[in-house]
Amino acid sequence: MVSKSQKEKAKRFLSLHQGPRILILPNAWDAGSARIFEVVGFPAIATTSGGVAVSLGYPDGEAVPRSEMIDATHRIARAVEVPVTADIEAGYGRTPNELAETIKEVIETGAVGVNLEDSLPRGSRKPLREISEQVERLRIAREVAKAVGLNLVINARTDVYLHRVGNEAERLDQAIRRCNAWRAAGADCLFVPGVADRKTIGTLVTALDGPLNVMIWESTPAPKVLDKLGVRRASTASGPARAAMTVTRKIADQLLKTGSYAGFTRDVMTHIEANQLMAGHSR
Amino acid sequence: MVSKSQKEKAKRFLSLHQGPRILILPNAWDAGSARIFEVVGFPAIATTSGGVAVSLGYPDGEAVPRSEMIDATHRIARAVEVPVTADIEAGYGRTPNELAETIKEVIETGAVGVNLEDSLPRGSRKPLREISEQVERLRIAREVAKAVGLNLVINARTDVYLHRVGNEAERLDQAIRRCNAWRAAGADCLFVPGVADRKTIGTLVTALDGPLNVMIWESTPAPKVLDKLGVRRASTASGPARAAMTVTRKIADQLLKTGSYAGFTRDVMTHIEANQLMAGHSR
Repeated sequence: MVSKSQKEKAKRFLSLHQGPRILILPNAWDAGSARIFEVVGFPAIATTSGGVAVSLGYPDGEAVPRSEMIDATHRIARAVEVPVTADIEAGYGRTPNELAETIKEVIETGAVGVNLEDSLPRGSRKPLREISEQVERLRIAREVAKAVGLNLVINARTDVYLHRVGNEAERLDQAIRRCNAWRAAGADCLFVPGVADRKTIGTLVTALDGPLNVMIWESTPAPKVLDKLGVRRASTASGPARAAMTVTRKIADQLLKTGSYAGFTRDVMTHIEANQLMAGHSR
Repeated sequence: MVSKSQKEKAKRFLSLHQGPRILILPNAWDAGSARIFEVVGFPAIATTSGGVAVSLGYPDGEAVPRSEMIDATHRIARAVEVPVTADIEAGYGRTPNELAETIKEVIETGAVGVNLEDSLPRGSRKPLREISEQVERLRIAREVAKAVGLNLVINARTDVYLHRVGNEAERLDQAIRRCNAWRAAGADCLFVPGVADRKTIGTLVTALDGPLNVMIWESTPAPKVLDKLGVRRASTASGPARAAMTVTRKIADQLLKTGSYAGFTRDVMTHIEANQLMAGHSR
C-alpha cells in the first residue's frame, strides 16, 4: 500500500484541477529541471516522455526500456515535494498485464498521476487503439491504483489531432467520443494535444464530461484566455527540454567555432546555487 | 577484457592531447547534451560531476551513489561514438578496493578516460589527500585499467587552487609537486582547475612533466591564447549544464509570472529534430 503522504499528494494534485485558476504544468525531463520548476513556484510537475527519452539517449515513442523510464520518473519524483505526474505514453505494454505492471511501478516511484494515450506503438497498422480497448486499459490503470490505495490522477489522452484523423469535423467528433469514453472509464482529466484555436477548445470544454488539458504550442491562447474558455490544465510538453537543448547546442557551437566562453560563463547560475538546489533532496 | 573499439577510442582520445591544437572538451551531464556536443563537432566528450549530480537530483561532491554515477556515465558513453572521459571526482571509494571497483565499472560503461582528483570527501579534516596516498590511488587506477587491457587516459587533478591552499607561491609550488608526482605515477594529463592568469598557466606548462588541462572560467584566456601558452586541454566543467539550468529557470519564471510561452516555443529545436538526434543511438 502507498504511504499517507503519497495519498495526500494525489488528492492535492486532483484538487489543482478544480481550483479557482487553470493548472499550468511544466514538464520536467530530469531531477534538476523538476527542482527548478518547484523552486520557481509551480504547485505540481509533469514529466515529458520526449525530454526524458533524449536525456536518457533515446528517441520519443517508448523506445526507452520501461525500467529506465521508471528510474527516471523515480529520480524526478524523489527530488521534489510537489505532486508529480508521469507521462507513460501508451503504457509501456501491449498486454493488460504489462500495462498493470507499468502502473504499479509508476506508483512505486512516488508519482501520483499518469498520462495515458490512445496512440498505438510505432509500426502498428493503425495510429489509434479502438475505443473499447483503450477503455479497458484505463479501467486496468484505475483498478491497479485502487488496489494499492491510491487515487491515481489519470489524464487520458486522445491523439486524434496529432494524427490528423479524418477531416476537421470527424476529428472533433472522435475527440469528444473518445474523451467521454475515457471519462466514463474513470479518467480524471481529458487531454487533447494538438488543439490550439479558441473555437475548437471552447467546443471541447462544453462537450466533454470532464476537465480538459491542452498542450501548449506557440499558437496556444495565453493562460488567462484558456482559463476563461474553461480549460482546467495546460502543459508545456517537451518545449522547455528542447529550449535547454537548443541553448546547449548554441553554446557548443559558439565554443567550437569562435572559441567564446560567454554562453556558459556569463549570467549563469553558479556552482554553489546549483548545489543548493539539490541540498537535502533525493531522500 | 575491453573491446577493440574501446581500445581504439582510448588511443584516439590520448592522441587528441598531442594534436596540432589544444583539445577543447565540453562536459556533458546526460545523453542528450553528449549527443549535441558530438553533432556540433567536438572530437571527444567529458562528463561533469556537478551537472550529472544535479540531473540525478544530488549536490556535487560524491553525494550521488556510485551505481547511479556509473549508470549516468554509461548512458552518456553509449549515446555517442566519440571518446568519453568520466569525472569520477575522488574515485567514489575510500579504500583501494573501492577505488579499483569504481575504475573497473567506469571502464565497463565504455568510457576511455577518467578525472581523478586529490580532494578528500566533504567533512574530512584536511581538504587534500597526502601526495603519497594519491600516488598510490593513481597507480591502482592504472593497474586496474591495464589488467583489462585498456590504456585508460588518466587526467590527474589537484585542487590546491580550488581550496586556496597556502599563499600564492606555496600554492604554485604544491600544484607543481603534486602534478609531477601524479605524472610519475602514470597520469596522462595534469588538471589544475582554478588557474586562469597567463603567467601562472605559463609557469605550470613549463614546470609540469606532462600535458596541462585547465578549467574554463569567465576570465580564462581564449583557446588560441591557451594553445600558445602550451595548454593541451581545456574543459568547460559544469558551465554548459548550469547555462541550460539557467534558461530552464528563466522559461519557468516567465511562464509562471507572465504566462508567456515564448521561451519554450520560439526558436526552439523541434520535436522531430530532438528525436533525430537520438535515432539509432544507445545501442
